[in-house]
Amino acid sequence: MRSVNIIGIGQTPVGEHWERPLKDLAGEAALAAIADAGVDRIDGLFVGNMLSPTLNRQMHLGALVADWIGLRGIEAVKIESACGSGGSAARAAWLAVASGAMEAALVVGVEKMTDTPGHETTAALATAADADDEADQGVSFVALNALLMRRYMHEYGWRHEDFAAFSINAHANALANPCARLREAITADDYVRARMISDPINLLDASPIGDGAAALILAAAGLNGPKVSPRLAASAVATDSIAVHGRHDPLWLSAAERSAREAYAQAGVGAADIEVFELHDAFSIMAALSLEACGFSPRGQAPRLGQEGAIAVGGRIPIATRGGLKARGHPVGATGVYQLVEVVQQLRGEAGPTQVEGARIGMAQNIGGSGATVVTHILVRE
Amino acid sequence: MRSVNIIGIGQTPVGEHWERPLKDLAGEAALAAIADAGVDRIDGLFVGNMLSPTLNRQMHLGALVADWIGLRGIEAVKIESACGSGGSAARAAWLAVASGAMEAALVVGVEKMTDTPGHETTAALATAADADDEADQGVSFVALNALLMRRYMHEYGWRHEDFAAFSINAHANALANPCARLREAITADDYVRARMISDPINLLDASPIGDGAAALILAAAGLNGPKVSPRLAASAVATDSIAVHGRHDPLWLSAAERSAREAYAQAGVGAADIEVFELHDAFSIMAALSLEACGFSPRGQAPRLGQEGAIAVGGRIPIATRGGLKARGHPVGATGVYQLVEVVQQLRGEAGPTQVEGARIGMAQNIGGSGATVVTHILVRE
Repeated sequence: MRSVNIIGIGQTPVGEHWERPLKDLAGEAALAAIADAGVDRIDGLFVGNMLSPTLNRQMHLGALVADWIGLRGIEAVKIESACGSGGSAARAAWLAVASGAMEAALVVGVEKMTDTPGHETTAALATAADADDEADQGVSFVALNALLMRRYMHEYGWRHEDFAAFSINAHANALANPCARLREAITADDYVRARMISDPINLLDASPIGDGAAALILAAAGLNGPKVSPRLAASAVATDSIAVHGRHDPLWLSAAERSAREAYAQAGVGAADIEVFELHDAFSIMAALSLEACGFSPRGQAPRLGQEGAIAVGGRIPIATRGGLKARGHPVGATGVYQLVEVVQQLRGEAGPTQVEGARIGMAQNIGGSGATVVTHILVRE
Repeated sequence: MRSVNIIGIGQTPVGEHWERPLKDLAGEAALAAIADAGVDRIDGLFVGNMLSPTLNRQMHLGALVADWIGLRGIEAVKIESACGSGGSAARAAWLAVASGAMEAALVVGVEKMTDTPGHETTAALATAADADDEADQGVSFVALNALLMRRYMHEYGWRHEDFAAFSINAHANALANPCARLREAITADDYVRARMISDPINLLDASPIGDGAAALILAAAGLNGPKVSPRLAASAVATDSIAVHGRHDPLWLSAAERSAREAYAQAGVGAADIEVFELHDAFSIMAALSLEACGFSPRGQAPRLGQEGAIAVGGRIPIATRGGLKARGHPVGATGVYQLVEVVQQLRGEAGPTQVEGARIGMAQNIGGSGATVVTHILVRE
């Protein structure tokens, strides 16, 4: 397999873009990435998206976006793994370039979620779970995560307020990210007083949905653009039971563990080498479980990383450095691409006030459902 | 890139499987393909599907199907290119194996369309078109194809009855396919008398929808199973304007032409070398346009191939040899995988009464939308 670099990035702000169609958001991010890379050839387009069939009555996003951005004719496809769609699209593009079938591929993650009533969006998101055994029984994603968080607190003796640092850190970092949806600092007091959604998950444990698009240009080594072009040194996907109740141990994200282990092996690094980690903090509990599954914390001890400041920029394992899902926002099918854009920003030294000094090795982990699909990428600045 | 073979196939009958959930259909085809290949390792799963988000309220089919068939943990993803989803899933699997990332990959095309009222299915299918400029204006797929057929008849001087052979041939071939949905011979008289749907398209110009699943095992050369394992000698995708009115020439499927040309180049063959062609005859007019775009007929002359018997088994370019979309049925996201299963059957000599004698080189072409995504594969028995 050939070596693959990320030579261009682009993104729109995450927000409520009611006046702009989905293809327009995708186009803005895509054209920004193409300009950033300075390429004059794109061989294929990989679109990551989850909800357009239900919320936007539009499938066939590969051809749609290729046509819209002036690349009519090129190979194009849409990839879906629920909230892991963006990472999965990057993985598919990586295979295309690594195989030698393409020299340069465009990855676009796009989602438009805020035009529809909230209950429709919640029902659409529930299609990421098992329809027969979860969604049709009325279980929403926030409810599934609440069950996990409650169990975790019971099993390991944590109180709700012990998770505050995940949210506080994400909000603090988002202040410096012009594309973040929530740019407002929060305090520990705000955290404990926030409105309850699904006990014990309150509003500040949950990431906000949003409209947005992010894009990457992947290219074979040698086709570098004008910017620092980190190598996509590892790309790995693993799955787990789609229904949470089907797992031997619901508090262990086995797919996260396996995809991270495979990624470490591909990149020839270990958890101790990762200098920045954009993880899938859709809920505080997911941030904790991901940190443990990827080897950054002993089992049941991840809240301690927050309390000790290890997850902050300057700490041992900085996470959500541009705001994470919690504060940058979670336009679901686009999220995995936003994470990769943000790791590239860190490795380029473009992260401003939340720059991880001298970062050379970064990781992004994108999760579909409640841990059923996990995509892990490692980027290395050579 | 490494050489890739198709070492196993599986399929369910196409029909109305109201009593069986989508994952059960997918599982039957997948397990049949695994047994057929005699493999004991599968590294990844690629699911082709279009409508499950809207008709079955279920996304995340990669993890869902992997879990259901006992392959929990493996890499899995869902691919969507409207009615071209099945071919696109095979293409994604080909990249994974050709790149060296996987030794053996499972492709499953699955669709469940008959549980919902017809108007819901029609509206869901229309999401393959441009939502803003086509679907929201009330244009359905049969209407788009009717416009194309009317224009073709006007431009080249054909009468409706001149297209009869496409339908008669497909129905005749389906008689010998136990998985076909419509196993009933039709006559030229039946054809002209069939109920009008969208003038000039009548019931016998249009393929029936259906529930069904088909599967393939793709493997690196050397990992052959007990059966004849044709080489997947070419895999190519091209796109066109998603909206028909955006094309310079609506009667020329430029994406079909380009993906076929690219496939011929990859396989080192030409149109004259193709001995069996499973094309995307969703409507009679699509069969005609595909034959022309792929170089089997001069422009505007494809109905002549039908009149001369060239498209029948034993003719110069046999098409729809197992019934095609017209009579095997068109479970949309699964269709592209059914086509590849059928070409493998021909190259193995397993096609029974509709066997193309000594067939060694076969082609499958899967179309998304009205020609916006076209996937072409060429298989060669070495």
